[in-house]
Amino acid sequence: MTLNYLSSLPLPDEWFAELARRVPDVSIHRMTAEQPPGPAALATIDFLHTGDWFPDASAVPQLRGIQLDTSGVDHVRKTSLWDTEVPIATLGGIAPVPMAEYAMMTLLELAHRMPRIAQQREERVWPSNADRLESLTPRQLAGATVGIVGYGRIGREISRLASVLGMTVLGVSRSGVARTQADVFDTGRLAPSEDHTELFPMSELDAVLRRSDFLIVVVPFTELTKGMIGERELDLLPDNAFVINIARGGIVDEKALLHRLRAGRIAGVALDVFDDEPLPETSHWWREPGALITPHVAGLAPQYQAQTLDLVVENLTRLAENRPLLNEVNRVAGY
Amino acid sequence: MTLNYLSSLPLPDEWFAELARRVPDVSIHRMTAEQPPGPAALATIDFLHTGDWFPDASAVPQLRGIQLDTSGVDHVRKTSLWDTEVPIATLGGIAPVPMAEYAMMTLLELAHRMPRIAQQREERVWPSNADRLESLTPRQLAGATVGIVGYGRIGREISRLASVLGMTVLGVSRSGVARTQADVFDTGRLAPSEDHTELFPMSELDAVLRRSDFLIVVVPFTELTKGMIGERELDLLPDNAFVINIARGGIVDEKALLHRLRAGRIAGVALDVFDDEPLPETSHWWREPGALITPHVAGLAPQYQAQTLDLVVENLTRLAENRPLLNEVNRVAGY
Repeated sequence: MTLNYLSSLPLPDEWFAELARRVPDVSIHRMTAEQPPGPAALATIDFLHTGDWFPDASAVPQLRGIQLDTSGVDHVRKTSLWDTEVPIATLGGIAPVPMAEYAMMTLLELAHRMPRIAQQREERVWPSNADRLESLTPRQLAGATVGIVGYGRIGREISRLASVLGMTVLGVSRSGVARTQADVFDTGRLAPSEDHTELFPMSELDAVLRRSDFLIVVVPFTELTKGMIGERELDLLPDNAFVINIARGGIVDEKALLHRLRAGRIAGVALDVFDDEPLPETSHWWREPGALITPHVAGLAPQYQAQTLDLVVENLTRLAENRPLLNEVNRVAGY
Repeated sequence: MTLNYLSSLPLPDEWFAELARRVPDVSIHRMTAEQPPGPAALATIDFLHTGDWFPDASAVPQLRGIQLDTSGVDHVRKTSLWDTEVPIATLGGIAPVPMAEYAMMTLLELAHRMPRIAQQREERVWPSNADRLESLTPRQLAGATVGIVGYGRIGREISRLASVLGMTVLGVSRSGVARTQADVFDTGRLAPSEDHTELFPMSELDAVLRRSDFLIVVVPFTELTKGMIGERELDLLPDNAFVINIARGGIVDEKALLHRLRAGRIAGVALDVFDDEPLPETSHWWREPGALITPHVAGLAPQYQAQTLDLVVENLTRLAENRPLLNEVNRVAGY
């Protein structure tokens, strides 16, 4: 039986040609959000490959699988497809290496005083010797503590890199144990290594915050994590801590963060995600001293196309064989 | 016998008080470049602790040791003290960890397209999905090759960090073997580890350049290394290579580098050092797309004061006991 596959993604023609070669029993349909398929065509779709375009559940009665183009699923919860039993698979497994690299990059930038250096560069100022000693001397990483809130595949890879810099690593996960999953996508790029991370359940978040010179937020956005790092939590951090959010806006209270950054209570922040995206042109974050900002790019992956192809081939094959999808979302946990 | 120690450095009073406690037989003299000691006082100095202030050799007949506040000695070669036999000790050993961190930070920034992202941020532009895919997708580090020109303590630490990212590391040193030295300062912060670096002598530089997706220059500035990375050498790099200079201006040909960056032959550069420092206000480097620049800060070290104190105490003790200084410069090699 031929499966009907529909993609809303702007992947190149060669990508779809390669997909057709690798799963011959699939009929490939492509669309753009501007030109969605008509009702008759939509009604025959078995498998939807999409980022942020979702039909109403009633329009896709045949649908038996969704492959997301994102690692997060928070935006799917608002759609009617969330309330069905159609399995949803994430892009999980593709982003951990580049996201961990990104997290270490911003950690190094904050420790090495790049926000201040960027400001001086803007003004074409070469710092004085006194300024170097007082304001530009880096924070020592060896012996410092990094708290990683969200200890999945990305968190584990961050931990591995931070350990190499001599940092003490604390991890926080829902259960306080590292999750091992059978049905997840493995790109083979996560180096196995001894893991010295001290793991804590979410109920011990406060204790972790009190020790975190660097706080990295990489937890999925769910009803449980919404606003979880607010005023009270930020006030538990040591003086001159640094905060990095590569998860989702809405998890860290932006206003509370800004207030503490401006007051000098927090030494610096790096944000890849925001309450409002795209970040409005009028946002203060574009030029906030002490803040490193990037436009939600931490998840971009070098091998995105090839690895996505592997994942879609695998999940179409599993669908044809009535096996569970890789990276299937647990709707109760919310990720 | 009491040694006369003279410092031209703006270290805090407590630093000198601690020095006095730890080496009681030393008479401590302090000065600024604006108020140097008179000829009679200068004539009694046994040990000079300085960054860039140097008396004429004839004015310091008693001088038996110089402790530099820098890792490089290129600026001392222009002074008359270079032509004496007074031992000169560098600050070597204090900077390797922060400099290697800095090198990895810029490597990650270049791989993750930070020059382009910085430009978009400047213009308050949130990139389109097409732009993300085409211009912001990071370069894959796992499997990429980094060439480290100058394989001393800093180069080895860079190699250790780059290996953890899955990179292939090529090292170039004068002899092609890793130097082991007895009389060098050890802060105890360099993690020992298996070293998988392929090492090459300087005579095989070309072969290393041909393979280097990332080139990191960290060689001392000497008569041999002056201009060593010029047009010919840059043209040996693979297309879309990245170049990082944390050594000294004058080793990499700035004009040749700029030309290739603007032509798209080189994908990005990170420069902490320049031909002219301070960088003139009119320099194009302040705003060159594709270039990450910092004001000669890569060597700033978190434990600079405490570690410098340890080193000065050790070298004053060695001087009193007529033993060779730690970190003594080899005037023939030029570093």
